[in-house]
Amino acid sequence: MRERLKSKPSPVWAKYVALPRLTGDAVRSFDNMAKINLAHVLMLKKERIISDEDAKILLNAVLDLLKKGPDVIPLDPNYEDYYFNTERYLITQVGPEVGGRLHTARSRNDLHSTLLRMNVRDEYFKELPRFFALREMLLKKAVENRDTVMTGYTHMQPAQPMTMGFYFAGIAQAMERDFDRISAAFKHLNYSTLGACAFAGTGFPIDRQYTAELLGFYGPVLNTVDAVATRDYIMEIMAAFAMCASTLGRFAHDLYYWATDEFAYIELDDAMSSVSSIMPQKKNPSVLEYIKSKCTHQMAAFSDAFCAMRGTPYTHVRDVGGESIHLIWDSFAEMEAMLELLREALKDMKIKKEHMKDRADSNYCTVTELADAMVKREKFSFRTAHEIVGHVVMECVDAGLNARAITAEKLDAASVQFAGRPLGWSNEEVQAVLDSLESVKNRVCAGSPKPENVDAMVSAMTKRLAEDRAVFDGYVSYVEEAYKRLDHDVQENV
Amino acid sequence: MRERLKSKPSPVWAKYVALPRLTGDAVRSFDNMAKINLAHVLMLKKERIISDEDAKILLNAVLDLLKKGPDVIPLDPNYEDYYFNTERYLITQVGPEVGGRLHTARSRNDLHSTLLRMNVRDEYFKELPRFFALREMLLKKAVENRDTVMTGYTHMQPAQPMTMGFYFAGIAQAMERDFDRISAAFKHLNYSTLGACAFAGTGFPIDRQYTAELLGFYGPVLNTVDAVATRDYIMEIMAAFAMCASTLGRFAHDLYYWATDEFAYIELDDAMSSVSSIMPQKKNPSVLEYIKSKCTHQMAAFSDAFCAMRGTPYTHVRDVGGESIHLIWDSFAEMEAMLELLREALKDMKIKKEHMKDRADSNYCTVTELADAMVKREKFSFRTAHEIVGHVVMECVDAGLNARAITAEKLDAASVQFAGRPLGWSNEEVQAVLDSLESVKNRVCAGSPKPENVDAMVSAMTKRLAEDRAVFDGYVSYVEEAYKRLDHDVQENV
Amino acid sequence: MRERLKSKPSPVWAKYVALPRLTGDAVRSFDNMAKINLAHVLMLKKERIISDEDAKILLNAVLDLLKKGPDVIPLDPNYEDYYFNTERYLITQVGPEVGGRLHTARSRNDLHSTLLRMNVRDEYFKELPRFFALREMLLKKAVENRDTVMTGYTHMQPAQPMTMGFYFAGIAQAMERDFDRISAAFKHLNYSTLGACAFAGTGFPIDRQYTAELLGFYGPVLNTVDAVATRDYIMEIMAAFAMCASTLGRFAHDLYYWATDEFAYIELDDAMSSVSSIMPQKKNPSVLEYIKSKCTHQMAAFSDAFCAMRGTPYTHVRDVGGESIHLIWDSFAEMEAMLELLREALKDMKIKKEHMKDRADSNYCTVTELADAMVKREKFSFRTAHEIVGHVVMECVDAGLNARAITAEKLDAASVQFAGRPLGWSNEEVQAVLDSLESVKNRVCAGSPKPENVDAMVSAMTKRLAEDRAVFDGYVSYVEEAYKRLDHDVQENV
Amino acid sequence: MRERLKSKPSPVWAKYVALPRLTGDAVRSFDNMAKINLAHVLMLKKERIISDEDAKILLNAVLDLLKKGPDVIPLDPNYEDYYFNTERYLITQVGPEVGGRLHTARSRNDLHSTLLRMNVRDEYFKELPRFFALREMLLKKAVENRDTVMTGYTHMQPAQPMTMGFYFAGIAQAMERDFDRISAAFKHLNYSTLGACAFAGTGFPIDRQYTAELLGFYGPVLNTVDAVATRDYIMEIMAAFAMCASTLGRFAHDLYYWATDEFAYIELDDAMSSVSSIMPQKKNPSVLEYIKSKCTHQMAAFSDAFCAMRGTPYTHVRDVGGESIHLIWDSFAEMEAMLELLREALKDMKIKKEHMKDRADSNYCTVTELADAMVKREKFSFRTAHEIVGHVVMECVDAGLNARAITAEKLDAASVQFAGRPLGWSNEEVQAVLDSLESVKNRVCAGSPKPENVDAMVSAMTKRLAEDRAVFDGYVSYVEEAYKRLDHDVQENV
Repeated sequence: MRERLKSKPSPVWAKYVALPRLTGDAVRSFDNMAKINLAHVLMLKKERIISDEDAKILLNAVLDLLKKGPDVIPLDPNYEDYYFNTERYLITQVGPEVGGRLHTARSRNDLHSTLLRMNVRDEYFKELPRFFALREMLLKKAVENRDTVMTGYTHMQPAQPMTMGFYFAGIAQAMERDFDRISAAFKHLNYSTLGACAFAGTGFPIDRQYTAELLGFYGPVLNTVDAVATRDYIMEIMAAFAMCASTLGRFAHDLYYWATDEFAYIELDDAMSSVSSIMPQKKNPSVLEYIKSKCTHQMAAFSDAFCAMRGTPYTHVRDVGGESIHLIWDSFAEMEAMLELLREALKDMKIKKEHMKDRADSNYCTVTELADAMVKREKFSFRTAHEIVGHVVMECVDAGLNARAITAEKLDAASVQFAGRPLGWSNEEVQAVLDSLESVKNRVCAGSPKPENVDAMVSAMTKRLAEDRAVFDGYVSYVEEAYKRLDHDVQENV
Repeated sequence: MRERLKSKPSPVWAKYVALPRLTGDAVRSFDNMAKINLAHVLMLKKERIISDEDAKILLNAVLDLLKKGPDVIPLDPNYEDYYFNTERYLITQVGPEVGGRLHTARSRNDLHSTLLRMNVRDEYFKELPRFFALREMLLKKAVENRDTVMTGYTHMQPAQPMTMGFYFAGIAQAMERDFDRISAAFKHLNYSTLGACAFAGTGFPIDRQYTAELLGFYGPVLNTVDAVATRDYIMEIMAAFAMCASTLGRFAHDLYYWATDEFAYIELDDAMSSVSSIMPQKKNPSVLEYIKSKCTHQMAAFSDAFCAMRGTPYTHVRDVGGESIHLIWDSFAEMEAMLELLREALKDMKIKKEHMKDRADSNYCTVTELADAMVKREKFSFRTAHEIVGHVVMECVDAGLNARAITAEKLDAASVQFAGRPLGWSNEEVQAVLDSLESVKNRVCAGSPKPENVDAMVSAMTKRLAEDRAVFDGYVSYVEEAYKRLDHDVQENV
Repeated sequence: MRERLKSKPSPVWAKYVALPRLTGDAVRSFDNMAKINLAHVLMLKKERIISDEDAKILLNAVLDLLKKGPDVIPLDPNYEDYYFNTERYLITQVGPEVGGRLHTARSRNDLHSTLLRMNVRDEYFKELPRFFALREMLLKKAVENRDTVMTGYTHMQPAQPMTMGFYFAGIAQAMERDFDRISAAFKHLNYSTLGACAFAGTGFPIDRQYTAELLGFYGPVLNTVDAVATRDYIMEIMAAFAMCASTLGRFAHDLYYWATDEFAYIELDDAMSSVSSIMPQKKNPSVLEYIKSKCTHQMAAFSDAFCAMRGTPYTHVRDVGGESIHLIWDSFAEMEAMLELLREALKDMKIKKEHMKDRADSNYCTVTELADAMVKREKFSFRTAHEIVGHVVMECVDAGLNARAITAEKLDAASVQFAGRPLGWSNEEVQAVLDSLESVKNRVCAGSPKPENVDAMVSAMTKRLAEDRAVFDGYVSYVEEAYKRLDHDVQENV
Repeated sequence: MRERLKSKPSPVWAKYVALPRLTGDAVRSFDNMAKINLAHVLMLKKERIISDEDAKILLNAVLDLLKKGPDVIPLDPNYEDYYFNTERYLITQVGPEVGGRLHTARSRNDLHSTLLRMNVRDEYFKELPRFFALREMLLKKAVENRDTVMTGYTHMQPAQPMTMGFYFAGIAQAMERDFDRISAAFKHLNYSTLGACAFAGTGFPIDRQYTAELLGFYGPVLNTVDAVATRDYIMEIMAAFAMCASTLGRFAHDLYYWATDEFAYIELDDAMSSVSSIMPQKKNPSVLEYIKSKCTHQMAAFSDAFCAMRGTPYTHVRDVGGESIHLIWDSFAEMEAMLELLREALKDMKIKKEHMKDRADSNYCTVTELADAMVKREKFSFRTAHEIVGHVVMECVDAGLNARAITAEKLDAASVQFAGRPLGWSNEEVQAVLDSLESVKNRVCAGSPKPENVDAMVSAMTKRLAEDRAVFDGYVSYVEEAYKRLDHDVQENV
């Protein structure tokens, strides 16, 4: 096919350009390349661009190749890429007269671009169930821990009590938005570029809708220069992964600090921990370090793709077709690792409930409730109540005491000072307000950690998870149906 | 409000933390802060958390402040941020007893987070019409140039003829996908975090749905820790901008090379050109350099936001609330510059039609059509036809001739050599096949440069542009209606 | 100067291209532009390219402008940029015949490129002392805390005891490497591009070395196309800043977690803390959140510069001259904020020594010392000693005890089990080994936390700091001397 | 070694954490791990930490393993990593009593960190000669093309004539700065972390200087927490590669556009070109697309490493030790591909000299010379000369003429109009000024394209290349000498 040129590819070119692509493609593309060839031949026949007989020979050759498997195709870098190597193999099987008709009305540009979409779709289909599984795990853990009171932090300082179930529900809610974006990417991924040829379509009366449908696509990317120029759907997946990975990385970061000896809120299962080669006491949650930092690879992939496209023409160029996708498979692999490791880490993670409750009752995180109670019961302004409580807290902190040392007496004294009169509450009343579980139960507003609110969130999110799964199942079955039709149409023509 | 602490903020803290925020916020936040205060007071009253009388005083104080304008609020970094400065001003107006009730049942965390969403929404509303305007310009230029034949390139080598209208339609099509993502971001942007308070909601019986609606949001971000922790909608906008900027940058890159003396396909209007201080002949399309490279700032913004969130807790922290949004306003400003400059550059750009046609007829970009014609008319296999044409082309190129030198005679000779028989076509037939305009008209397949196909694309895209505009108008009027209701409810309560 | 064109710049161009540059340049460039003009005129005269008289008039005009200040130059976007506006002003002062000679033998390309180097150098000179000041603070804190025992962590789990002084010395050591890179950047920054003209030099017999020296540069960037094409020195500064910011960000991250209620190792001064608007107990080290996340802006700046240059010609283009430097001033400002805030945070930070010692004695971080002692005293293999200690630790942990519960008796029992004989140590001996301060003092190897080792490190680093300062002072005085010479040569010629 | 834990690693952990590391390390680390073990044992013996006899057994075991090769070590993820698997193998060979002494006074933290430095050094040593080879090629091409006149561009518009040799010399000069940074990285790479142990050194009296020297390092990274925490030398290499890749990417971008049919300045050799599957005329320089876009992977690697370290403690964590180096091997591989492909592309690239000269003589790029000549000969001010030439150019352009149409008569007319008198030059004089080769020869200033200037640059750069090579050879021989000493010391002790 290199008749136009007077020499074989340089060994340097073969080593750094051809071979890496050949190796990667041979692993990923065998099945999908065959499907594309089958669909294309069926269409050429239907449109009478090739004869019934030639079509039959070509279809049988492809079916035969499918049976024999990828290893029968010799991979020679002198034939530039996987398509040329495949075509050459088929021509050796059926002869140049018929084999030479396979590539009628298409080009490697549209073919590879469609092949990439199919390869990416395969990975995408494998990846999405992992998001569902993690969301499911989070909802399960949220319900289990609806009453597990713990300290909530802002700026990593004890702020107000919450429950671990409420926190898990928060992450699950964030993952809903993250998943929206991941799922939305399918809308732009699942179009076919076949028939765009080099970029300018063709004079043959091809049926782009038909091949698109046989290959499980919603239809063709209409404008043909856009079809070969674009890889935006890949950036979209990478960006969506990056945003979800950002959420999950922050989640893992929280778990990581909760697993310290100082917080001691959780403990990973031994099977997910590692040891030290010299420190006998060590049980390391280093798996959380992997999880939380793996998010960065999604960002790197997106920025790599973006930069590879910067300063390139809007048409088919290898900057885009070749280099902008350099990290897409890594992106899928790292997303997979992150999701699987995180789910496994959560599964048997030990949650130290008593300790968390004890901390929440003593680290002053309930005192906002105290101020609020003054506003509600005594009709103090919020700023006045804030002053009274602030004063008592500082008094206790300066004395090295914890929140259990706040007494009715101290509050009365401060109240006299700032509001002109004592509260007159009993110590029992004060303690009731300062109890972290009571405080949580008291948080009536929508979306708050109150256990009934968490139940409601989880229930709504369980419903949305089912809906998201149904949408995804729709994607998958759409493609499966298409493949059945492809199979059927092939069988009718061989 | 810093009663808890024993000293004023350090001057270093004031200079590097407080002042930059105060300055930025005072510019952007005055109106929206007032709206939030009005909505919050109305809600507190409705839920009987504060008295009718106090509500009236507070509403009037805010209205009065609105009338006086932002300059009446002294900006003192000792009061940490814009909210504390505003509250302090209001307290000086209505006294601590009433003024101190304004902040009941909320926190700066939810307030600032909602304020940011409103500020971002304002910019977003100003930005989107610019995308519409550019798409409209592209469609207009596409129609105008439906017959403007030019060389289409792959790997920047003459490949096949296309039209400039077809190319513009391709960019317009890419912008549709880009816009999908930009428009979809509104779904995640337009929720309110008010009522999340510090992150754990509140024990006051607040109505989060009501404040959300008064402020033009679809509803509250339900789970309250997620509400204060998240800025994903900002990353989503940045990522969507980055992907669109990638398309536009590549488009500008094409224009840039078409404007060279060597291509000479287009020429910018003098008003969009710059000169040299020393080279008298110079007319520089340097504006295209700005446009094509400005895309990178979108990527920088996204990667900055992502990295600022990496390794942070999933709750309210300043890494996220403060630093992750460092480049968001730059992101809007640079997107604006890119869109406006590109549209202006297109507006009066000169298109050199004759020269482009002449080039397309001579640079061999029509010879694929010749091979296709052999397949169609002579039933040669595609590979055989490819060989015949390749041979003749090489012969001409080696002789230093251009495509007009391809004759029937040369084709016959090659045909005899590779197919065993001459074609027998006349020179007129050969020239007709090799004419670039004929070639384009012949591209019958869907999505190809054939002028009627471009008409069809433009017509469909015009419809979709109208639909996208209607969706956007829906966003805007939803918010406007909400503001009217806010106004109305305020008026009823003062 | 736009004679070549038939119209004024478009208002869109003026708004988005000309005005932003004019505004920025007028702030930063007034002095340096004047210096360049003075040096250039002196050189033109010296080489007899202009007459003595004309030179005198031009020099006086520039001196006069310097006296009047930047505000006398009207900034009109119709004159494209700051240089054209300045030239126009000078021409109005001295007439076109003489004023028109100022720009002989140069171009805006070399002029702006040199101007940028001078502006960057100014910022660089202001920034570097801040690195020295922080290193000095770290060395001071290292000495003060040479005996401040604390737990050292790996994977954030208690690992082995160290001292806070040792840790500070570690950060100071990392900053030495970081500073190496920052200082090395001067070597590439401090060359002049003046005389490169548009990119191809000039036929006038100019003296590039002379102007370079008058302006404080080491010499010219020789090859003239490289001179106008390159901004690599800016990427080098950004990358060097990014690496240092990475170190400092991680350092601030440690401080942040040490400031939690759970670790409680340090406490920021009240003047560097912020409060909550609703939680009366709150004292937030949120300044550390700013510091640790500001590092990301350095990365964003580098990646922005890189991407803006990607896909651009190697010559003068605005992608490089204009957009690749978009974030350079932000880069300096954010580095400044990070350094100043961090130093201020360290200055009066409270270190809770007793608590840290107590934790280190109880959280098992000293047990590696126990295993090592067995190897040394009993000649056990390391793996055997590790097994004995690991067994005892697990026993204690399972019983809910801390490290103080390790007794001679328990160790003997385990020793019998794994090594076939008891240790026979007294409880006093065991406790001595397990004491964290003893353990630290025992760390004899070079570079370890042993206080004397820290003294040695600090002493060596103090010397290197002085050396680095001397090198920097050399940079500064080199430039100051050059400016004196410029001044002198000007005075001799007016 | 996992005695502390009650269960084996989870299969999920094994699959996503352990196995990928084991696979990578087994390929890269076998030799270097052995070297580290040999050096460590020699040191333990020298310091009498282990007995001579035990040392001999251990040394022989390692030598034996080296002979048998990597495949004898079973890789079991249950043993966490490559070190534990290696240790386990050695223990099966020599028994636990002796084998258990190998790991005395070190940890996996320092061991892996040193191992990584050695692995990176190996790649670094393989990479650097490729930079030299490319620089050499550029200097060769610069000399060959010292007289090859061509158009120089700014904003991609014809600006002034230059030579291709001058341009190549410019790239070579930029590569000198790029190489400075790459070479400087060795200063931070080539230090040993061995003996830092977990991060806190050890109580055994080890000799860190000795092991450092045996392994080819300049010495130890002194402070031990910094030693295990840092990977800055990797970021430094990545950043330095990124900056060089930026230069090379822009260079390839220029070649790419010069290879278009429209510029037609160069043509790649057929062996470095690819074809089209359907367009018979195509000869694609797509290899240049690979080269110019591969630069982006260097940026991605740096930003990935940076972000993986963001928000991590300054000590040993897997975010840094594991994930921050995720792309380092890709970074080396992609740099290699870029350098090799670029050199091969340059090697037999065809340069179309006549066409380039013809273009330069006709596209007005010589008219600045005309204005300069008026200043020099007629003492016109530069602005006046600029006006005269600008007027004539516009006249010719409007008439559709090229630069050859500029006559003495037209210049006289314009000169009368703007300067009040004719030039009085002959047409021969005018043509001499407008000849591109004459113009280039006339560029007397230092660093300009004048062929003698290019000779001077190349000569200076040839010298610097030799110096850089000598420095590099010094790096390599330093390490080789160290390995010989290691060998020698081992032989003396077995």
